[in-house]
Amino acid sequence: MKDFSHLDPHGNVRMVDVTDKQTSLRVARAEGKIFLAPETIHKIKDDALPKGNVFTTAKVAGVQAAKKTADLIPMCHQLNLSYVDLEFEILENQITITSRVKTKEATGVEMEALTAVSAAALTIYDMCKAVDKNMVIEAICLREKQGGNSGHYRRTDDSTG
Amino acid sequence: MKDFSHLDPHGNVRMVDVTDKQTSLRVARAEGKIFLAPETIHKIKDDALPKGNVFTTAKVAGVQAAKKTADLIPMCHQLNLSYVDLEFEILENQITITSRVKTKEATGVEMEALTAVSAAALTIYDMCKAVDKNMVIEAICLREKQGGNSGHYRRTDDSTG
Amino acid sequence: MKDFSHLDPHGNVRMVDVTDKQTSLRVARAEGKIFLAPETIHKIKDDALPKGNVFTTAKVAGVQAAKKTADLIPMCHQLNLSYVDLEFEILENQITITSRVKTKEATGVEMEALTAVSAAALTIYDMCKAVDKNMVIEAICLREKQGGNSGHYRRTDDSTG
Amino acid sequence: MKDFSHLDPHGNVRMVDVTDKQTSLRVARAEGKIFLAPETIHKIKDDALPKGNVFTTAKVAGVQAAKKTADLIPMCHQLNLSYVDLEFEILENQITITSRVKTKEATGVEMEALTAVSAAALTIYDMCKAVDKNMVIEAICLREKQGGNSGHYRRTDDSTG
Amino acid sequence: MKDFSHLDPHGNVRMVDVTDKQTSLRVARAEGKIFLAPETIHKIKDDALPKGNVFTTAKVAGVQAAKKTADLIPMCHQLNLSYVDLEFEILENQITITSRVKTKEATGVEMEALTAVSAAALTIYDMCKAVDKNMVIEAICLREKQGGNSGHYRRTDDSTG
Amino acid sequence: MKDFSHLDPHGNVRMVDVTDKQTSLRVARAEGKIFLAPETIHKIKDDALPKGNVFTTAKVAGVQAAKKTADLIPMCHQLNLSYVDLEFEILENQITITSRVKTKEATGVEMEALTAVSAAALTIYDMCKAVDKNMVIEAICLREKQGGNSGHYRRTDDSTG
Repeated sequence: MKDFSHLDPHGNVRMVDVTDKQTSLRVARAEGKIFLAPETIHKIKDDALPKGNVFTTAKVAGVQAAKKTADLIPMCHQLNLSYVDLEFEILENQITITSRVKTKEATGVEMEALTAVSAAALTIYDMCKAVDKNMVIEAICLREKQGGNSGHYRRTDDSTG
Repeated sequence: MKDFSHLDPHGNVRMVDVTDKQTSLRVARAEGKIFLAPETIHKIKDDALPKGNVFTTAKVAGVQAAKKTADLIPMCHQLNLSYVDLEFEILENQITITSRVKTKEATGVEMEALTAVSAAALTIYDMCKAVDKNMVIEAICLREKQGGNSGHYRRTDDSTG
Repeated sequence: MKDFSHLDPHGNVRMVDVTDKQTSLRVARAEGKIFLAPETIHKIKDDALPKGNVFTTAKVAGVQAAKKTADLIPMCHQLNLSYVDLEFEILENQITITSRVKTKEATGVEMEALTAVSAAALTIYDMCKAVDKNMVIEAICLREKQGGNSGHYRRTDDSTG
Repeated sequence: MKDFSHLDPHGNVRMVDVTDKQTSLRVARAEGKIFLAPETIHKIKDDALPKGNVFTTAKVAGVQAAKKTADLIPMCHQLNLSYVDLEFEILENQITITSRVKTKEATGVEMEALTAVSAAALTIYDMCKAVDKNMVIEAICLREKQGGNSGHYRRTDDSTG
Repeated sequence: MKDFSHLDPHGNVRMVDVTDKQTSLRVARAEGKIFLAPETIHKIKDDALPKGNVFTTAKVAGVQAAKKTADLIPMCHQLNLSYVDLEFEILENQITITSRVKTKEATGVEMEALTAVSAAALTIYDMCKAVDKNMVIEAICLREKQGGNSGHYRRTDDSTG
Repeated sequence: MKDFSHLDPHGNVRMVDVTDKQTSLRVARAEGKIFLAPETIHKIKDDALPKGNVFTTAKVAGVQAAKKTADLIPMCHQLNLSYVDLEFEILENQITITSRVKTKEATGVEMEALTAVSAAALTIYDMCKAVDKNMVIEAICLREKQGGNSGHYRRTDDSTG
């Protein structure tokens, strides 16, 4: 098991020094779910609402949050992202959010992908909270990561933290 | 079932008009969990690390994110918070994060409490990701909410979204 | 003609001291236009695009920018807005953007309303610039303002700066 | 006519993927005008005010806004700008604002140039609004753009959106 | 000696709960100095530069930083400031910066006043660093504070930390 | 003596054009001190407080502020930092703060290092201000700078601004 990269030998929090890391293509895909009452899902799906509205708002929130990751997560490095995208899948009592993030800089982008999912989930929560107070955000995790020294990571379905 | 407060009668996204709402004490408590490999938890607990470091960093991230909620969640109102606190409980393979937020303004603070939990969880994730790529953030939800017209809400353990 | 409120007696820039101003309801309505090629408008209107997407994105940008006005305009005071809304009207070769902003604090919100319109116009520009490089943003102005000592202002159609 | 780069094939808003674009010198020049009452202009010009104050403040606002473009315009990419400059020309009843922006990254900087002009115009508006409520911001447009695949664009005087 | 307000009984960092504090007028005045080579000062004073430029830029930086204090200092509360001002005095080899900040909210504004001075000093440093690398920022301290439970504080000249 | 890089030939403030500067490793080390009453230092040192808390919070504040330098100092360029670190040394009546910052971009990072020290000092001030109102922040200066055209700078102990 490797050392905690964000703690120095004395156990103090630190930013990792990435000065000597190579820039290269780095990609990350993260996922999360928000569980809603079926009635809330029905309302979103059946009520002739321009559903794009909720998801466009959540997507904008996710993209904007990804760009602010280094401001939200203290030891994250600043990165100029070359791509951020979010997709939403509606099931009976949940919405699954998937984010994809790319950069060509010197560190991985899994935190940016996870931050995008989190902000999008919170935005959906905010837009539905007047009708549903029992929502839960679940299963925010990294699905896949490419580029950099740690190689290609792909989460298997039964992996648990 | 009430209307979606963030959609106007034509289904367009909108900010709720809180001009006529009374200012009053509003409190929210939110919760979330991050699941880690037991080895990661052991490493945090047993390795003579100044554990405060990880949790202080996560707490600062949570407090700072709560103050930025209106910048992260598009339709949230700006609020000056009078109190934000986060607590962390370490179990065998998870850390439970609880946030408490207060204000004396005209809207509720559940989004601020949920945002604090989310940012703290992401910060723990970031600090442990070099040793554990299978972490999952779970069960982010509102536990309790007081103040305002909607009255006292307390989540029961078996409520599911 | 009154003094420039943002210059002190020596002509130095300054923030106006609003400590002694009363909090009261303040409302502002601003407007702006973006001119596009008729083909671009047709493309937006006729192409079976979920048009809400462009306007939802522009609306989110406008709301978020209104909340950041004090960060963008150096001498503006911080204000917690109780309402921000934007509407879009599509004509043959232009989109008219109208913003409405409210607060119950001690200074007017015309800058917030104007900033909302500007950010929404720039967002529409950004989303159409791949197909139309000759767009122009025009006629950003205050239409109406209520509350505070300066009373009710309503712009007449032929008023020019 | 090219596709809208910010809408995917299903018409959903998206961030353009610039991962495969080459970094190269990119330059943009934008322009805008703010119309003021001649008395306001006279007051700025004749009143022995240290006029630099208004324009220095507006310039700082424009430079700072250019650096925040990706935070204001949702689908804009983060860019590290290598140069931002603004110039102001005073005419009888208007101030013309010109911005110049450069980067050596992978996307164009016209949005940064337009954002700089907009923030500078709003700042002038803010500083004069106590003496002049009829100001109008007009003619914000791209004058010239170099670098990248789309080649050299120069606006002709009679081009209209 | 009172307890550290920002540490809970277990010594963990915390935000002070100001929910029950009364809103009232709060004023703070802070001061700081930047020492420069006399040649740098001469250059600023004698070179027919529009000196207002350096000080206007530093003033804008100070005002903007004061408004961002809660984003910079983790345990600071969000406050809407009703007034921020900075003054600069040029001596033979130093510039003295004084800030004044006011609010009518529930906590003091000394951190806002100190942050304003710090940002203004750093901005002067930045503008002179091409001609002077030996500058030092000194003596940033609170001069006076009024309002709130702790009463009127005025620093005596010989008080030392 | 070189020209002020941040003033154009007419003395107007400007951002330096770094378009043609080479990217290369750039390092800066800055320092500052905060003087506290010996009783405050004793309280920090002797009171069985988890001292890491104060310094972890100050370190997070310093790292986050370094990343925001271009937002705080108007004419600073945006930079993606590859490393930021802060160290704290406790003496009898002072805490010395040292920051180290690295980048591989086209401009130096002394402002980022100085901003990190300033924010950390202000954070310590904030956390101790309930017990000590006479603190002073002193001697914020650049200790060393490497990379770029201006070569290796190392401050000698007796250099004074």
